Amino acid sequence: MYDEIIKQSEELADQLKEWRRDFHRHPELGWMEMRTSSLIARRLKEMGYEQVLVGPDVCLDESRMGLPSQEDLEEHYRWAEENGADPEFLPATRGGFTGVVATLPCGEGPTVALRFDIDALPILEADEEGHFPFDNNFRSQCDGVMHACGHDGHTTIGLGTAQVLMNCRSQLHGTVKLIFQPSEEGVRGAKSIVDHGHLDGVDYVLGAHLSGDVNTTAPYVGAGDGLSLATTKMDVTFTGATTHAAVSPHLGRYAMLAAATAVMNLHAIPRHGEAPTRVNVGKITGGTGRNIVCDQVTLEMEVRGTSSAANDYMFDYAKRIVEQAAAMHGCSCQIKLMGAAKCGSNSPQLAEQVLSVCREQVNLPAKPLEGGIPGSEDYSYMSDYVTSHGGQSCYFNNLVPCAGSFHNRLFDFDERALVNGVKAFSGVTAYLLK
Amino acid sequence: MYDEIIKQSEELADQLKEWRRDFHRHPELGWMEMRTSSLIARRLKEMGYEQVLVGPDVCLDESRMGLPSQEDLEEHYRWAEENGADPEFLPATRGGFTGVVATLPCGEGPTVALRFDIDALPILEADEEGHFPFDNNFRSQCDGVMHACGHDGHTTIGLGTAQVLMNCRSQLHGTVKLIFQPSEEGVRGAKSIVDHGHLDGVDYVLGAHLSGDVNTTAPYVGAGDGLSLATTKMDVTFTGATTHAAVSPHLGRYAMLAAATAVMNLHAIPRHGEAPTRVNVGKITGGTGRNIVCDQVTLEMEVRGTSSAANDYMFDYAKRIVEQAAAMHGCSCQIKLMGAAKCGSNSPQLAEQVLSVCREQVNLPAKPLEGGIPGSEDYSYMSDYVTSHGGQSCYFNNLVPCAGSFHNRLFDFDERALVNGVKAFSGVTAYLLK
Amino acid sequence: MYDEIIKQSEELADQLKEWRRDFHRHPELGWMEMRTSSLIARRLKEMGYEQVLVGPDVCLDESRMGLPSQEDLEEHYRWAEENGADPEFLPATRGGFTGVVATLPCGEGPTVALRFDIDALPILEADEEGHFPFDNNFRSQCDGVMHACGHDGHTTIGLGTAQVLMNCRSQLHGTVKLIFQPSEEGVRGAKSIVDHGHLDGVDYVLGAHLSGDVNTTAPYVGAGDGLSLATTKMDVTFTGATTHAAVSPHLGRYAMLAAATAVMNLHAIPRHGEAPTRVNVGKITGGTGRNIVCDQVTLEMEVRGTSSAANDYMFDYAKRIVEQAAAMHGCSCQIKLMGAAKCGSNSPQLAEQVLSVCREQVNLPAKPLEGGIPGSEDYSYMSDYVTSHGGQSCYFNNLVPCAGSFHNRLFDFDERALVNGVKAFSGVTAYLLK
Amino acid sequence: MYDEIIKQSEELADQLKEWRRDFHRHPELGWMEMRTSSLIARRLKEMGYEQVLVGPDVCLDESRMGLPSQEDLEEHYRWAEENGADPEFLPATRGGFTGVVATLPCGEGPTVALRFDIDALPILEADEEGHFPFDNNFRSQCDGVMHACGHDGHTTIGLGTAQVLMNCRSQLHGTVKLIFQPSEEGVRGAKSIVDHGHLDGVDYVLGAHLSGDVNTTAPYVGAGDGLSLATTKMDVTFTGATTHAAVSPHLGRYAMLAAATAVMNLHAIPRHGEAPTRVNVGKITGGTGRNIVCDQVTLEMEVRGTSSAANDYMFDYAKRIVEQAAAMHGCSCQIKLMGAAKCGSNSPQLAEQVLSVCREQVNLPAKPLEGGIPGSEDYSYMSDYVTSHGGQSCYFNNLVPCAGSFHNRLFDFDERALVNGVKAFSGVTAYLLK
Repeated sequence: MYDEIIKQSEELADQLKEWRRDFHRHPELGWMEMRTSSLIARRLKEMGYEQVLVGPDVCLDESRMGLPSQEDLEEHYRWAEENGADPEFLPATRGGFTGVVATLPCGEGPTVALRFDIDALPILEADEEGHFPFDNNFRSQCDGVMHACGHDGHTTIGLGTAQVLMNCRSQLHGTVKLIFQPSEEGVRGAKSIVDHGHLDGVDYVLGAHLSGDVNTTAPYVGAGDGLSLATTKMDVTFTGATTHAAVSPHLGRYAMLAAATAVMNLHAIPRHGEAPTRVNVGKITGGTGRNIVCDQVTLEMEVRGTSSAANDYMFDYAKRIVEQAAAMHGCSCQIKLMGAAKCGSNSPQLAEQVLSVCREQVNLPAKPLEGGIPGSEDYSYMSDYVTSHGGQSCYFNNLVPCAGSFHNRLFDFDERALVNGVKAFSGVTAYLLK
Repeated sequence: MYDEIIKQSEELADQLKEWRRDFHRHPELGWMEMRTSSLIARRLKEMGYEQVLVGPDVCLDESRMGLPSQEDLEEHYRWAEENGADPEFLPATRGGFTGVVATLPCGEGPTVALRFDIDALPILEADEEGHFPFDNNFRSQCDGVMHACGHDGHTTIGLGTAQVLMNCRSQLHGTVKLIFQPSEEGVRGAKSIVDHGHLDGVDYVLGAHLSGDVNTTAPYVGAGDGLSLATTKMDVTFTGATTHAAVSPHLGRYAMLAAATAVMNLHAIPRHGEAPTRVNVGKITGGTGRNIVCDQVTLEMEVRGTSSAANDYMFDYAKRIVEQAAAMHGCSCQIKLMGAAKCGSNSPQLAEQVLSVCREQVNLPAKPLEGGIPGSEDYSYMSDYVTSHGGQSCYFNNLVPCAGSFHNRLFDFDERALVNGVKAFSGVTAYLLK
Repeated sequence: MYDEIIKQSEELADQLKEWRRDFHRHPELGWMEMRTSSLIARRLKEMGYEQVLVGPDVCLDESRMGLPSQEDLEEHYRWAEENGADPEFLPATRGGFTGVVATLPCGEGPTVALRFDIDALPILEADEEGHFPFDNNFRSQCDGVMHACGHDGHTTIGLGTAQVLMNCRSQLHGTVKLIFQPSEEGVRGAKSIVDHGHLDGVDYVLGAHLSGDVNTTAPYVGAGDGLSLATTKMDVTFTGATTHAAVSPHLGRYAMLAAATAVMNLHAIPRHGEAPTRVNVGKITGGTGRNIVCDQVTLEMEVRGTSSAANDYMFDYAKRIVEQAAAMHGCSCQIKLMGAAKCGSNSPQLAEQVLSVCREQVNLPAKPLEGGIPGSEDYSYMSDYVTSHGGQSCYFNNLVPCAGSFHNRLFDFDERALVNGVKAFSGVTAYLLK
Repeated sequence: MYDEIIKQSEELADQLKEWRRDFHRHPELGWMEMRTSSLIARRLKEMGYEQVLVGPDVCLDESRMGLPSQEDLEEHYRWAEENGADPEFLPATRGGFTGVVATLPCGEGPTVALRFDIDALPILEADEEGHFPFDNNFRSQCDGVMHACGHDGHTTIGLGTAQVLMNCRSQLHGTVKLIFQPSEEGVRGAKSIVDHGHLDGVDYVLGAHLSGDVNTTAPYVGAGDGLSLATTKMDVTFTGATTHAAVSPHLGRYAMLAAATAVMNLHAIPRHGEAPTRVNVGKITGGTGRNIVCDQVTLEMEVRGTSSAANDYMFDYAKRIVEQAAAMHGCSCQIKLMGAAKCGSNSPQLAEQVLSVCREQVNLPAKPLEGGIPGSEDYSYMSDYVTSHGGQSCYFNNLVPCAGSFHNRLFDFDERALVNGVKAFSGVTAYLLK
């Protein structure tokens, strides 16, 4: 069976590249993966999948975090209509109901869930020579939106895996569940899939991330302790009072000064002695004109920690900073939670199986990684749910040479990752359902 | 003649209120006063004015500072079309060519220019009981735009004065020039009118601002040293580099930290020992997402000084701060000049005449003010041009009880200011052309 | 009589220079003017003054603000013993009881109080060629202490005036009171003299400050509205908790971050629209070692305003800032009041008399000044007390060419100021008691 | 032999406590361990050591970093004279030549160097009940200086080990070198010992640190990867210009604002994605008075990184920040290097031997530690030198229950650490020279 998986995966190589480049050309932000979701559903149906969920059946409405405005959702819906979305499946996504869940029942046996994240980032892609997608004509066609985190690859690997497993279904014993998750950036989507019940009864859950850099000389699969960073995302709004900046500056309440003080102090939160932490104020917006004292500034920010305690330390300190920065300048402040993820951790046995299947069955170099995977992932909601119900979880790395750095306008990955990813997911699933 | 002026002004009271409330309901930002300009021109024509300039004949194209994007101008043009603009005069304003200049020739004699500014501010007007425009149903119909500086009153006073002077024209000897100036907020418009030549050959130029507060128990006219604040306006853009905020924060170049450092230090520029100064960062925008290191932040800011030396001190210090704040975080920065005004000063003789005409001829209480008028005005470009060519200038205050403070969502003025303004402008003009 | 005053003043020229240079060589900080006070008392006694108060009879013990530690006072006392203090009068000054009050009764008539301040500043004087005191060998012999505000001149003028008035006493009718006040820097001393009762029954009080800069081409006397700046002085201490900076930074409570946040925000307190303000954090001390999280920082600071309302605005805002900056980093803070002065204002009639006596009687150019004198003075406590009890006050400027700027290591004044000051004080006193 | 070591170590228990409490009562800062060094030398001599180096023979003069002023060294020398220093050995320490190196030759065989650090910290020890040294009457007698990092224990363990090895010398084959190093805090001393040549020809070098916290329920020895943090220490001085804070604030150049900006931005240096980092501004001093613009501020600071690259990143960023913060306010800045340490790493074979000897030979629980030891140590200079010359190094932890946290006023350790430390050092040395 493994030889067949290898062979089929490799035969898919050209198809995978084509899919990937189409997704790369049409990146969509979180909760807006309307074109993407409709095409995933279309292709799964064409492969023979009969149980394909879309629309409100995927993400629980009220658990969706950080939803864009209805106006933006509507505008993007029209864009999707005009840019090649599948007309059968598109309507279900209206209002931000993106994502796809497909099930392949193969008789008695355990349930294996495979998770692939599908959204893009608000980054303007590079348009200069030397940037592979530019040179090869598949640079993003959406100004200011880019697959700079490899989710175009993840989506494609999911489709390839779906095809290979469908082809091998007669040799599997159990159930395969393919989860194409929206809105991973900002860790906003996974919770709503878990809350909808899609992880109920799952015995094994697997996820993966493309990784590597220019020094990754040859592709391989790695698995270590799992995800390393818990995170909390928040929007902070400072509200003061306007006045004429020259006539009566003393009557203003300066949201601008509150915000600048907060930004400086947030980034200066002391390091934690036991666990690395992160903080980022990624976006700021405020004020109406230069001669008016600014009465409102909004920060979009996040904190992270490699332990829950460290993340809590960061969050508590951050709250104190923004509250006091507001009070210092006679302003009020509002803190709105926009996302959250836990520290994930791999089930040691499953992690070892992932590595040995890759190495021994599907001919992929594989080795243990030290420590966890930097960054945060709302995959942690799935792993937490499954492992706390007696199942196992493994989040592994699909390493290839990468250009640029993640979340940068020059990011790109070696497309060998696509076939490798299909081999790894298919091989491990086959092993678990053999 | 003065009795006639008094009588006619008072008879206009209801008309003035109606005009003012219509302008208040339809506020337009700088270079977008399309509806306003078209209606001014329409009414001047109806009054019998034969020389009415609109469109590119008013402001010199290349001298217009701080022009909005063509997209915003176009969108607003469509709004004006749908919201009661005059169809004859509107087309000339397309592309931001707002403002009106009208001339009333009355034979031999000096030329008197009267300047009225017509633009609004990006402030969301209060919608609560007790706010007079709300209670009386003429609150702004444009969300986020408001006449919070009284220019609706200024425009109305200009129209009223135009009517009175037209009625009295047989008694005048010389030329009246009515200048309805766009884009005073941000001191962006006056220079382009001067550069177009409209102040050439002017012997007297007059401007006025509504003022007062809740403690102004009775209306009066005041005149002092003139305008007190020189100012420089600029946009500052910090450019760094994005990266994944958790995986590789050390690879980012944090425009956010550069901007926050600049905001704090700009507001902390030491006071000047000899002349009061001002600084305001009124608007900030930057970043794309919370998990991406922010690579670009733009500040809209201004400095001011009650002497040119003090304003230069502020501007030089501010430049140094933004440049070093950028360098500190490995970012570049660009400083774009967006507006400028000089310290204006009144011609003492004309200022005295304004006060004595008000007091003795048109029955308005009037008294000298100490010092200058706080705030900056690009009227200074007109006063500077006229006085440096042998003419005289006076910028006076039209004081009435006012609610809220200037540039605040609760601002409002006592409408007695309308008739008073017409009396003052008409009376002084009649005196100078008698 | 005025001719005599002119003649005697000019004959004192060499004596005044000698006294001034001796005081300049031996500057003493506030409440430590032990050598200075003892020599003033000695010289007054030699001139024939019979009522000379020293020690606790001058400043009310419990009203002395900002007293140095007993240890520092004791150490300085020993220094004074070894550096030429007068042995008869020195002991009374022990413990910081500095200052001298002398009375010259001349029969019936009003009481005129003349105030001279005598303390120096904690500044290291320049030791480079071109600095007049260095070139002429009277640079400060006390490292880090300097007469950089001209009080050596004030003290000397006080002694010269004492001599001239003693010589003319037969022509005076009333009482002269000479007040040599300690601890003007930091506005700490005047209140304790007022509280002791020395201003009771005073009809006229006069004070003066040396002023001018390199552009002051010729000496003159100026008088305007009086003092312009109210002020509040405070010490702020932030207290957090230490920990090992590398092992457990998250357990620290960073007084250092609280202090830096406070400094930035204090200097960024928005300007007041109606009255110029000032703020300065002049001194900072904190921490014990670089690898220990700093648990305590003390700021020595002040705010000022040209109106009491503006000073109150600054003080209230400053308090809010330091309290919230502390809370932001889990620290406590303590605010200790160290000094205060009101806005002083001149009695218009007395100010005019000062100018006319200078100009017409003692041959000194004199002219009105616009506005008030920048800076704060605790002379305001005296002027406030006298004028609120029916008397009159005038604080005038003794202008001469000055090098450097005030409170700078290169400060120096033209010594013509000494004779001029004696003429002005003596002439005006003679006029008031004629 | 090991049984003998166990027995002798335990018999020393009371002696060790007495020594430790004496050192604790008399803590001395780096380069000032004059009393301490003289007593170490005295006791080694009494034990029979014949080769005992003191004074300039220990630390190479020109390699000593961060030396106190000669004045402070002299003052402390006098204190040591009066507080029980040994009169024979004290004079050699004058001028900051502290530290002791003793050699015990035991015939042919390898050389084992043991390193003990002896200095204290500038912390005011707690004087409240519940603090063990206070309750037991051995709180620091030197106000503001405290053994808050356990070096009193290290010194004592060194003496105990010296005694035990002397007693067993007939059974050893090789050379023992005991290094009592001054000035470890601030990582200032080790380099000067290496530079003097004391590590030449050393085959094995061993160091240890007391550690643990309230949750360490039972004592044990741990060894892991070694030291984790490279560090750079620096003093930064900002120099601006004074002026009168109220009269001419615009003429000042504000070292205070430069310093506050630097502190905020230094603590806000973005985290490194690959290696935890640290930054601390531990001490700040500047200014002379509240009404004078502050012209000089000095920061004492450090950066650290768990890799050399991460430490270099921190140092380069920090330099850029302080330079630009100075330039921003027209100030100059001077950066003075005050100390440096590399990342140390343990030789795996020796680390295993340390654990097995402890566990199996001298009856001490022992286990491997994960990762490195937090904090920095200039022991790294010794380990780097020895391992790069073919030798081996191990830095291990001597864990016991500890109160407070390290570098805190409440720090204390369980005195069982003393006997345990002697057992571990003696046992491993005996093993290596068996």
